[in-house]
Order: sequence, then C-alpha cells, then structure tokens
Amino acid sequence: MAAAEAEAKKIIIDTDPGIDDAMAIFLALRSPEVEIIGLTTIYGNVYTTLATRNALHLLEVAGRTDIPVAEGSHVTITKGTKLRIADFVHGADGLGNQNFPPPKGKPIDMSAAAFLVEQASLYPGKVTVVALGPLTNIALAIQLDPSFTKNIGQIVLLGGAFAVNGNVNPAAEANIFGDPDAADIVFTSGADVLAVGINVTHQVVLTDADRDKLASSTGKFAQYLCKILEVYFSYHHDAYNTKGVYLHDPTAMLAAINPSLLTYTEGAVRVQTNGITRGLTILYNKQKRFAEITEWSNQPSVKVAVTVDAPTVVKLVMERLMDS
Amino acid sequence: MAAAEAEAKKIIIDTDPGIDDAMAIFLALRSPEVEIIGLTTIYGNVYTTLATRNALHLLEVAGRTDIPVAEGSHVTITKGTKLRIADFVHGADGLGNQNFPPPKGKPIDMSAAAFLVEQASLYPGKVTVVALGPLTNIALAIQLDPSFTKNIGQIVLLGGAFAVNGNVNPAAEANIFGDPDAADIVFTSGADVLAVGINVTHQVVLTDADRDKLASSTGKFAQYLCKILEVYFSYHHDAYNTKGVYLHDPTAMLAAINPSLLTYTEGAVRVQTNGITRGLTILYNKQKRFAEITEWSNQPSVKVAVTVDAPTVVKLVMERLMDS
Repeated sequence: MAAAEAEAKKIIIDTDPGIDDAMAIFLALRSPEVEIIGLTTIYGNVYTTLATRNALHLLEVAGRTDIPVAEGSHVTITKGTKLRIADFVHGADGLGNQNFPPPKGKPIDMSAAAFLVEQASLYPGKVTVVALGPLTNIALAIQLDPSFTKNIGQIVLLGGAFAVNGNVNPAAEANIFGDPDAADIVFTSGADVLAVGINVTHQVVLTDADRDKLASSTGKFAQYLCKILEVYFSYHHDAYNTKGVYLHDPTAMLAAINPSLLTYTEGAVRVQTNGITRGLTILYNKQKRFAEITEWSNQPSVKVAVTVDAPTVVKLVMERLMDS
Repeated sequence: MAAAEAEAKKIIIDTDPGIDDAMAIFLALRSPEVEIIGLTTIYGNVYTTLATRNALHLLEVAGRTDIPVAEGSHVTITKGTKLRIADFVHGADGLGNQNFPPPKGKPIDMSAAAFLVEQASLYPGKVTVVALGPLTNIALAIQLDPSFTKNIGQIVLLGGAFAVNGNVNPAAEANIFGDPDAADIVFTSGADVLAVGINVTHQVVLTDADRDKLASSTGKFAQYLCKILEVYFSYHHDAYNTKGVYLHDPTAMLAAINPSLLTYTEGAVRVQTNGITRGLTILYNKQKRFAEITEWSNQPSVKVAVTVDAPTVVKLVMERLMDS
C-alpha cells in the first residue's frame, strides 16, 4: 500500500457535494491509483457553505480527516448571475435529506484557489484537479497565478453538453451554466484540460438493480450511499423517466483515474456567456477551414470525451464502493 | 403537362443566387411535382440587388420570364449586423465569375414580403416557401400579416447546424448567421416549418465524376451549370478538402418536392442572437423535463431533417438537370 501510494497520482477534488460527488469522493478514496491531497468546495448542487460542511462530513464518514478541505468561492466570475442550486436533484442538504450531524472538522485557513495554486506549485506537473462543479475556483486559480496552468498536471472536469441538449435547459449543462465565464477561462487557459460532458455521462447508468446490490453489501460506503441515493433516483425517474441514475461525477473521476476507459477528441472549446444559450459549449476540432477568423481560432486544444466503456465504469464503481 | 401542373404544389423560392441556388431553381423548373409561382430575393451569397439580377437572369436562361421576381430586404432584422456576403464561395457575381450579360427583365413592383403575404392569402394552405438564404423576407412577411403563418402551407428552409459545427464558424450556419433574429421569428412563428440543416446537406455530395457526367450531357441546364460550378468546386476543395461539393439548396428543394427523401425529428428550435455563438440553432425535442421554464418551453414544434437518402437525392438532381 505504501509503495502504491508513493506512485499514486495526486488529485484535488473540487466539489459541491452532492450525491454523485459523494460517490466520486468515496470512489477516489478506494482507488489505489490516486491519492487525494485535498478537497476544495464550490456552489452548485448546494451553496458553498454547505458544500464545505458536506465535504468535511464525507471525510469524517470515511475516517479520512487527514485530508484538508479548502472553501471555495461563494459567487460566480460571470457578472450578475444568481446562483442556481440543484437542491431538487440532491435534496435540501445536498445529501438526500438525511439530516446528518454537523461535522467536527473545519476547513483550512486558505481559499480553494490559493490552495490549488499552492499545491500545483509544490508538485509541478504532478497534481490533477478533478472539478465536479462550476469552474469558478479553477478560473480564480488561473487568474491568481499565471504559472498555475503550467504547474497543474491536468484539469479533469465534469462539464458541458457536446452536440447534445443540456440538463439545465436545451442549451446548457449545469456545471458550465453555473459560471460560464469561469468555464471559458478554463477552456482557453492552455492548461491540460480533459472535459467529460453529459453526452458521455448520460451513457453511464446505475440501475435500480445495481442499487439493490449496493444495499446488500456490507461495505461502509455502499451502506451510506444507499441512504442518500433515494432522492437522486427519484429525481431521475421524474425528469428522465429512467429506472436508474446517471453517474456524472464518478465517470469524471474514473477519467482521471484511468483515462483509457473513455475515448477523446481534441479541439478548441468556447462557452457562450450570455443570451438564451448561456452556458453552451461548442467544440471545434480544427478540421474545417473557415473563411474568417473565428472565436475558436488560435485557441488551445483541450480533450473532450466522446465515448465511454460504460459497463466497465459501472462495474468499477460498484466493486470499489462495495469493498469493505 | 397541364394536368400535372394543375395538381402541382405551388412554391415560391426565396433565394440569393448563388451557384447551388441556380441548381435548385433549375431543379424545381424540371420537377413536375411543383409549380414555381415566384422568386423572392435576399442577400447572402450576394447582395440583394445582385440576387435580383441573378434571379431574373436564371429565369431568362430557362426561358421562364413568366415567373415574377420580387426583390427582398437589403438589411437584416437583427440590429447592427454587417451583411456577410459569401462571394468567396460563389464568385463576385454569385454565379462563378462568368460575366453574364444583365437580364432584360425587371422585378415586380412589390416587396418580397408583400408578395409572400399576397400569394399565401390568394392560395391559403397551398403555397410552400422554399427559403434558401437568410430568413429576413419570411420574418418580414410574418410581421406584415398576422395571418401569414396560417395562410402559408409550409416553409421549407435551408438553415441551421443541428448538433454539428457551423460553416461560418464552429457555432453558426451561414443562412441563420445572416439574420439570427429573423430566423428565431420564423422558428417560433407557429407556421409549418421544415428545416434542412448542414448536418444533413453535408451528406449530399456532387462529386467531380458527377460533374464530368453533367458536362457530357447536352441538357441546357447541365451545360450552364458546368460553367458556373468551377468556383464552387474550388472553394470546397480548399475549405473541406473534398473532391465534390455540397448540394445544400438542391437538397432543401427536394425536401419540398418529395419530403420522403429525408427523415425528420420535431421540436422547438431557438436561435442564439448574440455573443460568440450568434446564429446557433438549438433543437429541443420536448422529451427531457427541465426543472425551470426554459426559452424553448411552450414554443411551437417545427420539423428538423435528421437523415437523407443522399444517393437518391444526387441521382434525382443529376437526372433532372441533365434532362434536355
């Protein structure tokens, strides 16, 4: 274990827990390929204050209070944006309305952006940020330190709806919609960015039967998750008419853990920041030559997931979460 | 012939000729299923004045000066838009730089919008508009007469890039980009709208070999078209690296002539009218339920082409244009 940890990829999870965030965090804790060196928090599924509380709580559930939590931004970079909080997906508490007791721990005395900058600078090229919420903290880190984009190993983000309808509205996916300007800053930053959009995560479904199997497990995480998953299943049933839930955050986490579970295309991604398609992501693969200079011309390429080995992703999620 | 014409679908072609417009107009003239009752002109491939000149010229080439031409708008409905003229695709004259003599005829003394309103009102439910350029004239007709959307039989339009990159830039297709506000007015008007986007027309390619075959034909239209096609082939070779050209306008025309050559989905379409994705079209098929009211909610459904029987479309285009 010590040897494995010595070689493990250092990750910071930027998160708004969130039911599937909880799954992703537990999954990472059970993945010897990675070592979580911190959680940073952001609004999205819940407000930032509650995200911090939930992050601390989840680490206490896991018995991993050694992992620092840095609180992130309470506001968007995009001006004049009212926060959109997805409590109708995750419950008012973000964790399935379970009224868990408040955590004993506290966040560190450093902002999420400052923590990201510090860690990237401490371990240049060695830290992967797995961003599971709106990209405000990552954009702030980019703005805080011009060398952040060079120092950070990779930014793996759950965000975007590439060539498909969004989940906030027909144009926009929730994390990008949450702070479109921040997302555009990240996509055009020149950092090594790998985006996993809902065009991919909507292929990764945890079924009712999978949940029953989780429930029959004696694993600590499986038991905990089955309690909070009820609200998440119920939302999916109403909104999508599916008997199962999308594994958004766990899929993005596995893209960081084992990139070969997905395939990717590369190109410039820009985000629409206003109007009726605010939060829309448009990928340009740099093949077609346009007559004019476009807003995508001369922008750095990022990786965008196009396919996923969904059965293996679900299998890994189940196995690792059922482990006791 | 008289009997066929009596039953033929009346069409008005709104056009910015344009090399593929010329193909579409000739194709319609050779299609017994339809009767062209007028051409209306618009900017796009050329400025409106030149579009009118070219429309009159093409009807003279065809010996069909009995068909009226109504000149359309010279400006966009979208405020502050500089016209984007695709002379790099069609030549400075819009017809392959052939320096054709000026036409003898003149447009009628009625605007395109007024002509559309008049004809729709004369033959309620019987007139199909085939819109091959930016949608300004159609939107003006909708604004001019509240009953136009009821009186017009169908609006078949070439426009949009549904779930694919555009051809002006990664977000926008040229006709919608040409007047995004006009397009949004048409899509949300409640009229029977059938949109054929470049996601479909990019599947319909006239190859170099097809052009050689056209050139060997003694047909009047085939001979004429081979002269003007050079510039169009040359653009496609440079921009797309293809040995062939996209049959945008002829495909839209065939969708009006024989809808069963394509398949369709239905849903609300909205157009982004500002920002970096100005001119983008987003279709919402009304399946997923969103938590909030969206800009697509409660909008009328339109038909959007999703597949095309490309070999049959190319075959029909060839056969009808080679007919002498």
